[in-house]
Amino acid sequence: MLNELKNTAAKINEIILNDDFPSIIEPKYLRGTVIDYPGRGGKRLRPALLTWCCGLLGGDPQKALYPAVAVEIYHNWTLVHDDIIDDDDVRRGLPSAHASLTKYARDNFRNLRFGAEKFGRDFAILAGDIQQGWAANMMLKAADNGMSPEVTIALSRRMQELVTRELISGEALDVEFPMRGLKNVTSREVLDMLYLKTGALLRFCAEAGAAIALDSTDFNSPEIRRLGDFASTAGIAFQLRDDWLGVFGNFSKFGKSLGSDLAEEKLTLMLMKAYESLDADKKYKLMNLLGLESYTMDVIEEARELFIMSGAEKYIRQKADHLAEEAKTILEKFPDNEYRGWLSELTDYLVHRDK
Amino acid sequence: MLNELKNTAAKINEIILNDDFPSIIEPKYLRGTVIDYPGRGGKRLRPALLTWCCGLLGGDPQKALYPAVAVEIYHNWTLVHDDIIDDDDVRRGLPSAHASLTKYARDNFRNLRFGAEKFGRDFAILAGDIQQGWAANMMLKAADNGMSPEVTIALSRRMQELVTRELISGEALDVEFPMRGLKNVTSREVLDMLYLKTGALLRFCAEAGAAIALDSTDFNSPEIRRLGDFASTAGIAFQLRDDWLGVFGNFSKFGKSLGSDLAEEKLTLMLMKAYESLDADKKYKLMNLLGLESYTMDVIEEARELFIMSGAEKYIRQKADHLAEEAKTILEKFPDNEYRGWLSELTDYLVHRDK
Repeated sequence: MLNELKNTAAKINEIILNDDFPSIIEPKYLRGTVIDYPGRGGKRLRPALLTWCCGLLGGDPQKALYPAVAVEIYHNWTLVHDDIIDDDDVRRGLPSAHASLTKYARDNFRNLRFGAEKFGRDFAILAGDIQQGWAANMMLKAADNGMSPEVTIALSRRMQELVTRELISGEALDVEFPMRGLKNVTSREVLDMLYLKTGALLRFCAEAGAAIALDSTDFNSPEIRRLGDFASTAGIAFQLRDDWLGVFGNFSKFGKSLGSDLAEEKLTLMLMKAYESLDADKKYKLMNLLGLESYTMDVIEEARELFIMSGAEKYIRQKADHLAEEAKTILEKFPDNEYRGWLSELTDYLVHRDK
Repeated sequence: MLNELKNTAAKINEIILNDDFPSIIEPKYLRGTVIDYPGRGGKRLRPALLTWCCGLLGGDPQKALYPAVAVEIYHNWTLVHDDIIDDDDVRRGLPSAHASLTKYARDNFRNLRFGAEKFGRDFAILAGDIQQGWAANMMLKAADNGMSPEVTIALSRRMQELVTRELISGEALDVEFPMRGLKNVTSREVLDMLYLKTGALLRFCAEAGAAIALDSTDFNSPEIRRLGDFASTAGIAFQLRDDWLGVFGNFSKFGKSLGSDLAEEKLTLMLMKAYESLDADKKYKLMNLLGLESYTMDVIEEARELFIMSGAEKYIRQKADHLAEEAKTILEKFPDNEYRGWLSELTDYLVHRDK
């Protein structure tokens, strides 16, 4: 499966690097930011999900490549804007988009009335905006590469009506929750938010792959819906693993980002569960570990103890395992072929990865 | 013509207000921001241009309504992000998107670690992002309303390949120029920037109307190109009038925004021309009028004097008139019908309006 993941990633990288959409963007450093994240590589999980779901239902994964690139670029524009919002200076071990642009401004302009940071943020907003258009355009290009005009339009609409609306709503809620405060948010709300923020794009990947295979525009057909459920369910498991790794991950593998959810006071499901279970004294201790300037191993250890003691750590592991099993059960009703095997292994991989 | 403009605006408003795209956006105040600017009305110049260009070439303007709404929503998302970048707190006499959201945060959240202003900006970024998707979706909906799938795809692609790339590049250059400083930018570069920032979307409106009328996907056909040239040329004239009004407009009609280009140190063509013509002493005086905290009538008068003395004021008026004439000359080669009359009157109106 991991080999096949690499094969898929190589095809995706080739299309991204050779696409001429960014070519006429000015100024040049803005063009550079537009191609930066999409060109950084990564596992290309979403393209793999999309093309494999196409293969699962007997479609030609080759026909699904442009839509697969589209979802990858789509994912990347959301990262550029999320990094501004979360004030994250690092992305995949390199400076984030706005951090790079801030540095560029410092090195190149003298008349920075509002400061290099504002320049960095402003141009990163514009870079993400262009990437959003690039993603929409890549999806439309599928019509030149073997997809029918009807399916091309249906997928393009579904990307906006499902993904844009739900993913951005999820991102907004994720930012809003800490401002409402722990006491005023329920773990049910956090779970619902995850289905929007993480689930919507993954659901779309599966639906798109299925729709291409079946040459269908009916997203209400049971087959497409079920495959969407698989992806969305596996996606939440993936996200819960992410939350778990954010506290219980290996320091040498996770590096700086260990504790970053705590630093940003993100209301993860694990935090909600711990808060709901602990007594007043321990609740207070937990609250005091949020929003700190830095997270030493001692602080992380203290947090780990509270998460374990409250049962939240175990709950999250079990919940992730349970969701992964649920996802694989859905998968079992689909044809037994190599794609099904890869999708099943991918699901296991997502909830057991240690970085 | 002004009556017909109102008729077109009414049809556009009806589609915008009844579209269900924003319906499932959460939280509710984000949904409110998404529908805010598009619902504020305005002249709806871009939809008029698009539908009239369709009528000009014998098409049914009714068939062009969804694309016309799409360009209007597209225009609005760029305003939301521009207002963040320019730090503008007012839009059409009401609080700008990020200013409204800042107020909402102040009134509703207690735990604003990064302040209400950051919340306002972050959520306005997300609102503009959703609007960009809404615009793309509205264009695709044309396929349900009488447009062929092929033309729908072609227009959707053209919107990204022409407008997204050029308009955002233009916006980026407009923000970059003041940071490079007056001495390091030429008036040629400023004019080129206007063709990107203002010209691209207007060109697209004309092209789209023509493509719908001709049921064509060939944006290189002479007829579509010429009509695009008309709109782009008229658009620059419109923009130059805007720059002129920003200094020479009537205070009671233009209100607070008089002098705002000077306050933001925008490198307008008028400023470039003045700077290039004045002697060192007057250059210095002009520079001292940029980036002030407030603009009293005395300061505005001082600026007016320098613009007149340098010949820049006259140059801009003549340039706008010249471009308007050029646009109308292009128009004369098209069929003589009521739409041509309206488009010609619209061109005159744009360069002679006093607000």
